[in-house]
Amino acid sequence: MSSKITPNIVSPPKKIKVGILGATGTVGQRFITLLSDHPWFIIEALGASERSKGKRYREAVKWKQTIPLGGLGLGGIGTSETEKISSTDLRSDDRRVGDLIVKGCIPEEFKACQLVFSGLDADVAGDIESAFRSANISLFSNAKNYRRDPHVPLVVPLVNPSHFSIIPQQQRLHSPSLSKGFIVTNANCSTTGYVIPLAALEKAFGPIESVLVTTMQAISGAGYPGVPSLDILGNVVPYIGGEEEKIEWETLKILGGITDSETEFDKNGVPLKTFDMHQAGGRPALRVSASCNRVPVVDGHMECVSLRFHRRPPPSPQQVREALSAFTPEVQTLGCPSAPRKAIEVFEEPDRPQPRLDVKGTHNGAGVSVGRVRQCQVLDIKFVVLSDNVSIGAATSSIINAEYAVLKGVVS
Amino acid sequence: MSSKITPNIVSPPKKIKVGILGATGTVGQRFITLLSDHPWFIIEALGASERSKGKRYREAVKWKQTIPLGGLGLGGIGTSETEKISSTDLRSDDRRVGDLIVKGCIPEEFKACQLVFSGLDADVAGDIESAFRSANISLFSNAKNYRRDPHVPLVVPLVNPSHFSIIPQQQRLHSPSLSKGFIVTNANCSTTGYVIPLAALEKAFGPIESVLVTTMQAISGAGYPGVPSLDILGNVVPYIGGEEEKIEWETLKILGGITDSETEFDKNGVPLKTFDMHQAGGRPALRVSASCNRVPVVDGHMECVSLRFHRRPPPSPQQVREALSAFTPEVQTLGCPSAPRKAIEVFEEPDRPQPRLDVKGTHNGAGVSVGRVRQCQVLDIKFVVLSDNVSIGAATSSIINAEYAVLKGVVS
Amino acid sequence: MSSKITPNIVSPPKKIKVGILGATGTVGQRFITLLSDHPWFIIEALGASERSKGKRYREAVKWKQTIPLGGLGLGGIGTSETEKISSTDLRSDDRRVGDLIVKGCIPEEFKACQLVFSGLDADVAGDIESAFRSANISLFSNAKNYRRDPHVPLVVPLVNPSHFSIIPQQQRLHSPSLSKGFIVTNANCSTTGYVIPLAALEKAFGPIESVLVTTMQAISGAGYPGVPSLDILGNVVPYIGGEEEKIEWETLKILGGITDSETEFDKNGVPLKTFDMHQAGGRPALRVSASCNRVPVVDGHMECVSLRFHRRPPPSPQQVREALSAFTPEVQTLGCPSAPRKAIEVFEEPDRPQPRLDVKGTHNGAGVSVGRVRQCQVLDIKFVVLSDNVSIGAATSSIINAEYAVLKGVVS
Amino acid sequence: MSSKITPNIVSPPKKIKVGILGATGTVGQRFITLLSDHPWFIIEALGASERSKGKRYREAVKWKQTIPLGGLGLGGIGTSETEKISSTDLRSDDRRVGDLIVKGCIPEEFKACQLVFSGLDADVAGDIESAFRSANISLFSNAKNYRRDPHVPLVVPLVNPSHFSIIPQQQRLHSPSLSKGFIVTNANCSTTGYVIPLAALEKAFGPIESVLVTTMQAISGAGYPGVPSLDILGNVVPYIGGEEEKIEWETLKILGGITDSETEFDKNGVPLKTFDMHQAGGRPALRVSASCNRVPVVDGHMECVSLRFHRRPPPSPQQVREALSAFTPEVQTLGCPSAPRKAIEVFEEPDRPQPRLDVKGTHNGAGVSVGRVRQCQVLDIKFVVLSDNVSIGAATSSIINAEYAVLKGVVS
Repeated sequence: MSSKITPNIVSPPKKIKVGILGATGTVGQRFITLLSDHPWFIIEALGASERSKGKRYREAVKWKQTIPLGGLGLGGIGTSETEKISSTDLRSDDRRVGDLIVKGCIPEEFKACQLVFSGLDADVAGDIESAFRSANISLFSNAKNYRRDPHVPLVVPLVNPSHFSIIPQQQRLHSPSLSKGFIVTNANCSTTGYVIPLAALEKAFGPIESVLVTTMQAISGAGYPGVPSLDILGNVVPYIGGEEEKIEWETLKILGGITDSETEFDKNGVPLKTFDMHQAGGRPALRVSASCNRVPVVDGHMECVSLRFHRRPPPSPQQVREALSAFTPEVQTLGCPSAPRKAIEVFEEPDRPQPRLDVKGTHNGAGVSVGRVRQCQVLDIKFVVLSDNVSIGAATSSIINAEYAVLKGVVS
Repeated sequence: MSSKITPNIVSPPKKIKVGILGATGTVGQRFITLLSDHPWFIIEALGASERSKGKRYREAVKWKQTIPLGGLGLGGIGTSETEKISSTDLRSDDRRVGDLIVKGCIPEEFKACQLVFSGLDADVAGDIESAFRSANISLFSNAKNYRRDPHVPLVVPLVNPSHFSIIPQQQRLHSPSLSKGFIVTNANCSTTGYVIPLAALEKAFGPIESVLVTTMQAISGAGYPGVPSLDILGNVVPYIGGEEEKIEWETLKILGGITDSETEFDKNGVPLKTFDMHQAGGRPALRVSASCNRVPVVDGHMECVSLRFHRRPPPSPQQVREALSAFTPEVQTLGCPSAPRKAIEVFEEPDRPQPRLDVKGTHNGAGVSVGRVRQCQVLDIKFVVLSDNVSIGAATSSIINAEYAVLKGVVS
Repeated sequence: MSSKITPNIVSPPKKIKVGILGATGTVGQRFITLLSDHPWFIIEALGASERSKGKRYREAVKWKQTIPLGGLGLGGIGTSETEKISSTDLRSDDRRVGDLIVKGCIPEEFKACQLVFSGLDADVAGDIESAFRSANISLFSNAKNYRRDPHVPLVVPLVNPSHFSIIPQQQRLHSPSLSKGFIVTNANCSTTGYVIPLAALEKAFGPIESVLVTTMQAISGAGYPGVPSLDILGNVVPYIGGEEEKIEWETLKILGGITDSETEFDKNGVPLKTFDMHQAGGRPALRVSASCNRVPVVDGHMECVSLRFHRRPPPSPQQVREALSAFTPEVQTLGCPSAPRKAIEVFEEPDRPQPRLDVKGTHNGAGVSVGRVRQCQVLDIKFVVLSDNVSIGAATSSIINAEYAVLKGVVS
Repeated sequence: MSSKITPNIVSPPKKIKVGILGATGTVGQRFITLLSDHPWFIIEALGASERSKGKRYREAVKWKQTIPLGGLGLGGIGTSETEKISSTDLRSDDRRVGDLIVKGCIPEEFKACQLVFSGLDADVAGDIESAFRSANISLFSNAKNYRRDPHVPLVVPLVNPSHFSIIPQQQRLHSPSLSKGFIVTNANCSTTGYVIPLAALEKAFGPIESVLVTTMQAISGAGYPGVPSLDILGNVVPYIGGEEEKIEWETLKILGGITDSETEFDKNGVPLKTFDMHQAGGRPALRVSASCNRVPVVDGHMECVSLRFHRRPPPSPQQVREALSAFTPEVQTLGCPSAPRKAIEVFEEPDRPQPRLDVKGTHNGAGVSVGRVRQCQVLDIKFVVLSDNVSIGAATSSIINAEYAVLKGVVS
């Protein structure tokens, strides 16, 4: 899964100005929280709807993060006092975010940004993101609108950053062709969490044949106001609209390869690259069956996974544990600053991971946690995986994708 | 699955005196609540630990039911005012339960009872239940201790009451042999809920080959004090000790048949009957894989089930819905008063059933609810089933078993 | 607090046709649930917004009650099987509610109704309720719009049904004057719960001088979708918009008397009657201070009350307990069928009442529960009161008000 | 409230070895979490019950903190990646805590410690803490056992560290008299949270005459296993055993002064110092009335406070806000490293603070948050205060007390 884009790693520029679309929403707030003390990225511009435009960010936003807006960049929870003091210099900088004047979501307002993150809602993301790309802006989107586009990579940064290699084609196919503008999306939160151990296992043991996944998803995955409390307090809702379908096909695109199309050609007659969602390249087709449930948990998607490998005999639970624990994604070796120090934490305790205790892990929600690896009586292996749906399941993935793009020179 | 015990139904006696062991515990309280307005059974004796012995029940118990102890038999929640008034005569009777003097759990104290229910904890149930059987008392137990005993039927009343037919052998094998004493157990709550639709589907479409079940279980399943709030509030615990194993083997015993043993014989050289847990009798082996989770729900186990039929092609989702809805267990046609009017309620809404809204159904938790019947990409069919773990999953099953035994003349 | 309307009680008519406005909303659903097996009232017409108009009720509503729409009138939870069976005849009737065609909220559509209940939202209730009154329809409203109107009684049925005596004046002042039309409102849910014990104490011990009340209110009080789960799961929100003000002034109107106005006169020069919210009639002014909190509870408002009596020395905790327990409102002696058998249940246990266990009580939420009566170090007495905000705090109050009006001949 | 102990601040020693009693319990785990990256204190010894003695800490403990045992000292949640990396060197150190061999709670095992923290349960704390003091060890206890002792200071570090001045007398009265050993306790969690704004207001506006406080307390306040989930999920329990009494008298001791006793004398005939809980020294008596509730919140006690000042007219809400915000406790100016940068955060938003969002604040739970400051119709002023019961309400207070003692030279 090595990158096919550029052989040489570009040294990271000191300061990169970034913009955030949908800045007042749940995902936007998370982008701001994560970027407020980022070593490279500086928040330059915030975009939101007409209702917020022209206001100071602190007046426009209904801030819902556990780190207060005024405390961003100060280290926050769990930081030692000495570290807090040493970061005092950043304070004036970070106070700045609250004082930024919110802009409309139009490309002209974001010209000073070298790249833009989108936390837009799906009902507006389509047109706005397209306009940003056409304006030659590099866009990292958390929205679902372009995930199915055959020339837009759907990248879980711990899994398939190699899919960035399709970007030149995305730019070439645009009319007029683009030099810098592109759209990269990250995956749905519930897909992201469980596809990371799947990727680790395919890397170690070859193709997986079938996967059954049952999710227990946190309310924060539905944004704000999201799930009415009367629906979920002391309850389980065995349905999340469109979620099962997303898991089932996103998994195929993410774990699939990129091949030359046999039916599409560019103007020079060169076959177009396309995602190979059916794994025709010699590997057995992957079948995925998802059952999605909403549970009264604030943050952290739990997923019970059972799977069958192509290879016979399948690996033992202990081999699976070791392969998961050893998994080292390219974004980590490359030095993306937001990549987790450990991609997959494997728990030995029988009753872990648990959302309330383990969702943040030691990596601020950038890695995932796996537990209860054991044999499945019907398929081969079963386990649970916990992922932080508001971190690796959303903004953190976009940010690592952007870091990867910077290191690979895809964003200049 | 027709009964093999007695061809003729005995007409129900007017009043049958019953005892309850473990009366102060969670299951015991539920037995009392359900029996307080039972048409046949009259609570005659309550047994509990040394700590409670000799006290009035109302002083011995830490009552945790939503229907107050003083309101038992008055109809309670949702009853129309007129019905409440009409049941006033029962009141003196029901007030009586609070005034009963709690006895020790020894057979001598329960001689006046025609049958006894056990809500004992597993750590004491073994010896006590055995002593009651030896004292020639018919015992209907919710405890797990004798579930694996090859001569004790493990009966989910909506599924396999035909397994009562092994009781004569249980009595014959006892030394000295018994005329009335026996133990019947009901199944673990999470097994009970999902095995009912499985039985309905096997009845309609023949043997199931494999089942994957992921549970989201309510805290009341763990009794009181049970799950510490710090473990479960806003959390999911992906582990319940011993639960997955119980589901996996109990399913085999419940859905299995009774055959003559090829290796065991009675003193007359007649082959002993034994449970056929491997379904050797021509049907394919059933493989079950369970993943159990505790969720912050008070009452109601939700289970996501995927299964594969032996028959090809498998039935369609619509055929499955119709078969589930049409399922009519023997206890219902026979007229057991606590049997649900409808064994399986099938929901068409995409987001139902839900524990908070649907756990009691229209049958006071005696039936189960199934929803989201759809195709599975890996096996054949998937759906969710919701069962009331404190009703059909516990005391209600024992009570229907006892009603069945009365109607069949097994209890005289 | 004896009624001033008619000396003779009218014998209740067999069947009274009623309408429900706002039938698809939370309060409307509760009206339907409660009226589905009412001994006098028959649901004749359901009104809702344009979106629902013309649809069958079962298609128009997103039903959120724990008793299924199809199970209404069948007795439901906690009812014995025999009672369920005996009520089978009602079933066809009750199925009927789901099949009713939803009407628009215009008086012409409700001509067949002898009285109408309103569960409308405040943003539309003003004009619609006024139009119904002008069309000479008796309207019992749960909305807040007319609560402050000096000629509309604000009636907590267990407290001040005597305030119905202002209705003739409300009708006379209308232009043209009305023979049957009027509006009666019930109080805000958090006011209703705690004002019942206040009324009981004023009846027994004379005027209260000051009250401090801190509420912990259930999410169902905010309707649906109401409180976002992200705001309340594992959280407390120390604010409910407008709630503290409502408690503070509604208490004064409800506990106040009706006197002749010294400044307003009718066309004949007769002084108008008006509510005496300042208790000028010789009694000391009542001061109320409320602090309102939302807590993650589904149903049941808990309120911690501290109060000071005018009389010195104040009653002892034991005297208070006895007075609360002995309180018998007029609606009860009069025989209103939905009035609770006991208005105030007094708990002796130190840790009761609790919403989850006690909200419904033995009276289906029509009474309230008081516990922890003890001395206050700052004022005189403190206690907690629990009320079922969706029953006595909403639809049940409207229904008892209507029953009272029928028995008193206010509704013909 | 300036310190009366030593005029000169001792410069903090580089490394002070500390012990923790009750290390496997809830409070003990919190001590370890907080001390793992403390600038002065080094965890030297851990003590627990016989069951844990001799095991490695990681094997003895059922770790329930959101920061994993292996991640202690690494910065944790909300820390920027760069800071995390820079703290890598600490890792070996912090891993060390998990590897420590748990000792018994006997003084001999803690000789290497310069001071000891106690997170012991009340049922064992009495004898053990006394033994440690007798062994001349400085003990900072979170247990309640010695809080009422007239010679043991009950210190909320943001309020009354001046009460340390009674320690020399505590040492002198011991037989034999002690040179270094003493016991200092911190207050009950619910007292600590609300007494901080009370102290700020007394400092600014003079004595408070009466206080009414209604608490909504988190489950973590009850330790582990603590509150059964069946008691609290979707519920409120209006009772916490002994809690109201604790708040009512602890407040008097904490806000009271130390005076010379008129009845007790030391052997030299010098009057003994004693706590003046009745505020006889010219100030009006303070009356406190508390109502305590448990709510389904994990961390964070919310308290609704109404109070009356002695001074007429009382300060306005705005003056109260300013005084709270300006409050600067001595521990802060003195430079205690765990003291909050801001003691009281005052919120202007109408619906804040909230436990889930605000419990940690920007100071890792060492300060408190106040909101909704407004007039009270019965007393003068009302507001809500939120405190982190597991931080400032428990271990953090002990630690700041110890820091203060070090800076003041009370601990050498």
